[in-house]
Amino acid sequence: MNDERANLKVVPERAKADAVTDALRARYGSDFPEIGDAWNGVLASLLAHRSVRAYRPDPVPPRTVEALVAAAQSAPSSSNLQTWSVVVVEDQARKARLAEFAGSQKHIVEAPLFLVWLADLSRAERLAQRSEHPDDGLPFLETFLVAVIDAALAAQNAVVAAESLGLGTVYIGAIRNKPVAVAQELGLPPNVVAAFGLCVGYPDATRPAQVKPRLPQVVIHHERYSDAADETGIAAYDATLRGFQASEGLPAIGWAEAVLKRLCSVRSLNGRDRLVEEVRALGFPLK
Amino acid sequence: MNDERANLKVVPERAKADAVTDALRARYGSDFPEIGDAWNGVLASLLAHRSVRAYRPDPVPPRTVEALVAAAQSAPSSSNLQTWSVVVVEDQARKARLAEFAGSQKHIVEAPLFLVWLADLSRAERLAQRSEHPDDGLPFLETFLVAVIDAALAAQNAVVAAESLGLGTVYIGAIRNKPVAVAQELGLPPNVVAAFGLCVGYPDATRPAQVKPRLPQVVIHHERYSDAADETGIAAYDATLRGFQASEGLPAIGWAEAVLKRLCSVRSLNGRDRLVEEVRALGFPLK
Repeated sequence: MNDERANLKVVPERAKADAVTDALRARYGSDFPEIGDAWNGVLASLLAHRSVRAYRPDPVPPRTVEALVAAAQSAPSSSNLQTWSVVVVEDQARKARLAEFAGSQKHIVEAPLFLVWLADLSRAERLAQRSEHPDDGLPFLETFLVAVIDAALAAQNAVVAAESLGLGTVYIGAIRNKPVAVAQELGLPPNVVAAFGLCVGYPDATRPAQVKPRLPQVVIHHERYSDAADETGIAAYDATLRGFQASEGLPAIGWAEAVLKRLCSVRSLNGRDRLVEEVRALGFPLK
Repeated sequence: MNDERANLKVVPERAKADAVTDALRARYGSDFPEIGDAWNGVLASLLAHRSVRAYRPDPVPPRTVEALVAAAQSAPSSSNLQTWSVVVVEDQARKARLAEFAGSQKHIVEAPLFLVWLADLSRAERLAQRSEHPDDGLPFLETFLVAVIDAALAAQNAVVAAESLGLGTVYIGAIRNKPVAVAQELGLPPNVVAAFGLCVGYPDATRPAQVKPRLPQVVIHHERYSDAADETGIAAYDATLRGFQASEGLPAIGWAEAVLKRLCSVRSLNGRDRLVEEVRALGFPLK
């Protein structure tokens, strides 16, 4: 079996078992899932993810952006359409303006790199214009989604690459609070919208981020969807997350209450209840 | 600087330089970008990605799904809302029915695992119902997008983990051809829609997949969007991709023509021009 596992690092069995257990316990709390023999340096890096909101001012090494984008471009792309772009923002004043559009999150200014990932149908639109070809497939919700999903797969590869290089990252969904203002700031042509931002930099070890526990594996359904394990799973997770929140000095409200607060009111959308209008204004009819 | 790079493997410098060059040349053709010193086993795994459409019938090892989902759950999640689920389909008859909904792609049946990644707001909806809490934030396009992006980040982590374990994968966007039929097949509750599928299994070495070249790094914009490098970049890529297509025994049409064919007609959407109606029918008003 192991010959299938090209990247499985050879480490003493006991040390490996400890590393796996530690990683799973950090991610799930004491009642963690069994994952069999599947372990290597890549899985260790993935499971150790944490969102970093405190950065040292040090710049990233030269050509880091090119390396992250090489990883991003290596992600799958729907029909190889490559309907995404990324704007690399390093200018302090521009980062400050973007931060203001995105709920004044100070780590946007603090991180040396702020990457804005774009759902970009303009490259296809320019191709169509240059060759006077129809562009009838562009105005659909489907095509917008292809671009957003392409951007997400690419960005996540960049995140995985960044973390493997000792960098920290955090996504900024609040870049969708004001898509038209962001588009003006970044000079986006029509048919392009910022899907999310991403801070990148070296984590400040004096303000360390922790691995956040997730739901038990109730997210897995076999053959057909079932919510049978939902209630007990969420109750257990509420307890795990309360422990985590308390250890972080946060209000120990658990998960269910946080979800209801965040997802179930219009006010907590921070303007994103207008996203349809803003995205349409940027050239996506979403038909 | 190198002390930042926890996962940098110690390998002879010359062997490393060769590995980097080979990986970049496969991904970009002869005119590849400089990526500085950024290299390790994670980047090597990311850059080696290829979409696998030919699988051996061998099952995956026990607990592989749990390992892939542990990686997936370790991906960032917007406000920790965890608005995704995954259905693991192994039943041959069900895979065959899903394949039929998704353009009759035979690798869906061939791969031992077919994972259907769901944008899932039903968990939040159930929480709201159980506590008689309002759910006013749910019906927005923004909340739908949060769920789709969450699913994409999670799935991409699973892909990265799978490939590191010697497994192959390919995303199936065509699962969006018939979202209502897919929802019925998988017993999805309201407020859940299949975002994409993913085949997982051991690649058939007798029908190997190759690394597909991508656009040059014209996808990177500094500070503000610029299409200045677009035309020459695409012309160079057209040549690179024609070479790749010819070596694969495919029609050497390059990229621009393929994009125009695929993106610029309604017919090539294969029913996905009706996605708005189907997604609405599944409980997402997209307002």
